[in-house]
Amino acid sequence: MTVTPLVIAGLGPGDEALITPEVTAALADATDVIGYIPYVARIPAREGLTLHATDNRVELERATHALELAAAGRRVVVVSSGDPGVFAMASAVFEAVEQSPRFANVEIRVLPGITAMLAAAARVGAPLGHDFCTINLSDNLKPWDLVERRLRLAAQAGFAMAFYNPRSASRPHQLARALEILREECGPDRLIIFARAVTTPDERISVVTLAEARAEMADMRTVVLVGNEATRPVGRYVYTPRRAG
Amino acid sequence: MTVTPLVIAGLGPGDEALITPEVTAALADATDVIGYIPYVARIPAREGLTLHATDNRVELERATHALELAAAGRRVVVVSSGDPGVFAMASAVFEAVEQSPRFANVEIRVLPGITAMLAAAARVGAPLGHDFCTINLSDNLKPWDLVERRLRLAAQAGFAMAFYNPRSASRPHQLARALEILREECGPDRLIIFARAVTTPDERISVVTLAEARAEMADMRTVVLVGNEATRPVGRYVYTPRRAG
Repeated sequence: MTVTPLVIAGLGPGDEALITPEVTAALADATDVIGYIPYVARIPAREGLTLHATDNRVELERATHALELAAAGRRVVVVSSGDPGVFAMASAVFEAVEQSPRFANVEIRVLPGITAMLAAAARVGAPLGHDFCTINLSDNLKPWDLVERRLRLAAQAGFAMAFYNPRSASRPHQLARALEILREECGPDRLIIFARAVTTPDERISVVTLAEARAEMADMRTVVLVGNEATRPVGRYVYTPRRAG
Repeated sequence: MTVTPLVIAGLGPGDEALITPEVTAALADATDVIGYIPYVARIPAREGLTLHATDNRVELERATHALELAAAGRRVVVVSSGDPGVFAMASAVFEAVEQSPRFANVEIRVLPGITAMLAAAARVGAPLGHDFCTINLSDNLKPWDLVERRLRLAAQAGFAMAFYNPRSASRPHQLARALEILREECGPDRLIIFARAVTTPDERISVVTLAEARAEMADMRTVVLVGNEATRPVGRYVYTPRRAG
């Protein structure tokens, strides 16, 4: 019997031209595609393919469902936007495997994708061209104190930063507090990039200073980039030099 | 007159199936491809295309050459492996623009690619599934003291980490020192992933503990991933849970 791996695939930030051929091939071969509603909506229907679209809050249930289908011999692709390993479905699937010994024999293949911070950085120039860190600002799965501590240490380390999930209807205040901490640690002139729905028709990008930055500039489709102390404009672009110190 | 943008494109980690269609289209339309020798070697020759392969140490000269050709109306693609914005050619091109006002009118398009750390993470599971940082271990362009400081702060922040350029013939000792610092900050059981030449026929991946890790496990084609304190094996995979604290 051929072992059918469960595939966890990254669809990139939105533009079809940013989906890797590896992911396109996996989707063409799938019998089942599973994911959060707006990501599954990006997959064209075809005969022989079942689309399973679920709400955002049920990652572990979704992962378990995918593992069950794969264990039953279906060719399953779990889709994430961006890269599945960056605040997306890959960790949830491995959590589900860990919790359920019955999935120990399911083979899993993770197919990387273009993650939002790199698509956003490319759009404005090269703001992540030196050492940087990547922080999920949601405190659904970690205490907010830990986020604050990480922000301060990251600023003290001189990292450029990328924030995922900076703001949602249920978490309206976290980003305002994060900007406050950055103002204390970095001063008012640090460059901040709000990149919304990058590479989609809804794309909207603004570059502001930390003094000008407001939490309302972000929503749940935004990734926020924070320059390091050397990040600066050149013409209509923003870049971070390779050299430091 | 149509403005021809200078394109800076990411070729991904090695596998052709990881090159985005956007990059493939740009290469098909190019008159000139410029880059470091092994990356240019990945581009098939064809009529009407001039390949310019140069040594790794001349990023600024290469960037200036690319800008000159683009300003003269050639359709130029500067190629990097991985993502051009992550320790690659994008920052060098913007540095060259900043230094030479004659390039102020050249339009620049950065096309993202699958960067090595994300390809490596996908190969082993999801070790970067929580907050993480990305550090260039080379001290060619920054003082080594700054690298040490960043490593300690990153460990204290609880970040998983990815190290680019961990070791080369001219910098044999930095990684050993970095591992020493991590042992002081993180203890012996932290998981370390050495991922060499990911997605190429030369791929070699090892997962070891910090106690077992040796600098000799890396060379210039290796990206090193460091788990956070919760990173652990599940079956033959390694993952970092989404939850912390």
